Amino acid sequence: MSAADSPFLRACRCEPVERVPVWFMRQAGRSLPEYRALRGEGSILEAIMRPDLATEITLQPVRRYGVDAAILFSDIVVPVAAIGVGVDVVPGRGPIVAEPFRSAADLSRLRPLEPELDTPYVLETVRNLVRELDVPLIGFAGAPFTVASYLVEGGPSRDFARTKALMHTEPSTWAALVEQLADIALASLRSQVLAGASAVQLFDSWAGALTRDEYQRFVLPATRHVLEGVADLEVPRIHFGVGTGELLDLMAGAGADVVGVDWRVPLGTARERVGPRPALQGNLDPAICLAGFDIAADEARRVLAEAGGRPGHVFNLGHGVLPETDPDVLERIVELVHEEGRAEIEPGAEPAVVSGHAPWPDPTSAGVATAREGTR
Amino acid sequence: MSAADSPFLRACRCEPVERVPVWFMRQAGRSLPEYRALRGEGSILEAIMRPDLATEITLQPVRRYGVDAAILFSDIVVPVAAIGVGVDVVPGRGPIVAEPFRSAADLSRLRPLEPELDTPYVLETVRNLVRELDVPLIGFAGAPFTVASYLVEGGPSRDFARTKALMHTEPSTWAALVEQLADIALASLRSQVLAGASAVQLFDSWAGALTRDEYQRFVLPATRHVLEGVADLEVPRIHFGVGTGELLDLMAGAGADVVGVDWRVPLGTARERVGPRPALQGNLDPAICLAGFDIAADEARRVLAEAGGRPGHVFNLGHGVLPETDPDVLERIVELVHEEGRAEIEPGAEPAVVSGHAPWPDPTSAGVATAREGTR
Repeated sequence: MSAADSPFLRACRCEPVERVPVWFMRQAGRSLPEYRALRGEGSILEAIMRPDLATEITLQPVRRYGVDAAILFSDIVVPVAAIGVGVDVVPGRGPIVAEPFRSAADLSRLRPLEPELDTPYVLETVRNLVRELDVPLIGFAGAPFTVASYLVEGGPSRDFARTKALMHTEPSTWAALVEQLADIALASLRSQVLAGASAVQLFDSWAGALTRDEYQRFVLPATRHVLEGVADLEVPRIHFGVGTGELLDLMAGAGADVVGVDWRVPLGTARERVGPRPALQGNLDPAICLAGFDIAADEARRVLAEAGGRPGHVFNLGHGVLPETDPDVLERIVELVHEEGRAEIEPGAEPAVVSGHAPWPDPTSAGVATAREGTR
Repeated sequence: MSAADSPFLRACRCEPVERVPVWFMRQAGRSLPEYRALRGEGSILEAIMRPDLATEITLQPVRRYGVDAAILFSDIVVPVAAIGVGVDVVPGRGPIVAEPFRSAADLSRLRPLEPELDTPYVLETVRNLVRELDVPLIGFAGAPFTVASYLVEGGPSRDFARTKALMHTEPSTWAALVEQLADIALASLRSQVLAGASAVQLFDSWAGALTRDEYQRFVLPATRHVLEGVADLEVPRIHFGVGTGELLDLMAGAGADVVGVDWRVPLGTARERVGPRPALQGNLDPAICLAGFDIAADEARRVLAEAGGRPGHVFNLGHGVLPETDPDVLERIVELVHEEGRAEIEPGAEPAVVSGHAPWPDPTSAGVATAREGTR
């Protein structure tokens, strides 16, 4: 088949597919022994700067799992690191910014990203991968809010208090910050697609910490700038965050072709919130993969059942693969989704029990869905 | 006025009030200089065991803020610590269990709680407080899931992987664990009410990490056992968790008179999900209190506007007071809610703009609510 006919790209476009496509956020990484063997103890940012390593790491899960898409091995802070913001990714902690952004004066530490000059290694990795892969490659970038939160907090945060204070008390500084980060994300995504990526995912991992009002006033315009800025490239745009059940309609409205959903929101509920489009990606709980295959399989079947056999479902986890995950569980989840997941009816048609796909057997679960719909 | 006529208790019963009542989760604690002066560096569990200290700490925020309710200074692990489970509360980390629960054999480490024998200091503190207070006292307990998660994980967790694995792979062990914890919570709450507490709050702080299906299968029965077990005492039962937007209807259905809502869910949306009852408690973002009073005031007014002037609103934060919070901000929030919050119309009547209460001025915000309702 041609790349455009791949189940992953068809599902992103809400077209019927013979089998539900599946990939896993953080499928490349610490859960794979071959990754740990290759990476050793070096810095992740240094590994990303080596196209030979980054290419191999991206390919590892595609070989092992038979997933329907590869995702570029990279990090959301790569572009800001490349333009000279002092940031490192510390194992077990995440991105740490040596001198956090605290005022308008810090805006001068950002400049436009020139991908061919600033991140040539990323583009070389993408070109390598496109030659090697027979599944689509997903490029990616961090969304303005989430990247800004690292710059302002100086690292991971539980409550994002400094970030929220900045957006509310210095809205023009905040707007300038996320506009610059939007331009950087946009330049990075465009360069990845022009180098051969078939789709993009914009990670706004921590947007779920915001109220709807904050999201709409302080985040949505910059996010829309990124997503609309790649519209002319005609690749699917996936938009993901965790804990974003209350924001799904806004995230869809920002220009996403696919919205990522975490495990807290049943996919049927997510569908009610966003309407017949965009496609939905998710939403197996990554923690449940640590309970062994049989349990994870039950939960994966529930996810398929909640997707209802409608086109426009990309199977994934609701957040990234946990480092302690047994790769065999993920391998068998891919097999299960390929064997049991079908989405052949037209979008907008009534959900139906799909042939070849065992309905979720627990009557309690069906009762939940019904009761829930009754409250809305 | 008599205690039963207090705005807090009337609001819990969804009765009209002349002013919206307000209190803050963790209103007693590290944000108060008088608390830090009194507590010093000692263990929180030791402070709880001293009725003189616990009484004074509970009273401090009532004096300073003029809140409409006091909440007993305690911790959700007090009952399990009292029956001999080795647990300490480590500053900056939370409850740490020396030997985590990992199998059915650990169930024998639990036994029924006899409040007068095991936690006499709690009851002495309650009796002291009831003599001193002229606002209602809220007793509290940790809900079975959240307490179980500490016992199983050994401490705070990001993903609750061990807890989820136990509930799925050893459902009978899990059921026995949460049943025992439910009996312990129930005994503790009953004793607090019989000693004089006018309401109870059951904290299922981390239930938002679960899917709806998990909540219904593995958590709801034990939670219902606790909440229904105090029904005959005829005090309002508040039930709270963070990140529980998808569970609000189930948490209400467990027997709550009041459901706590975090800042992610607009109160109007929460009301749609739970129906005309129970009352709602919340939901100012605690992080926004670090942005200064003017911003926090705007957000507090938005919360009041989203509550719509309907009876059945207890103003609170969406989670506990952050330690860095300036007490002056909270003091002024109490004044604002008392001056501007009214809920005089009957439950079930149409929401209305309420006299004396400035409508939220941002037209964008009104647009959000309308657009959102349109997607449901």
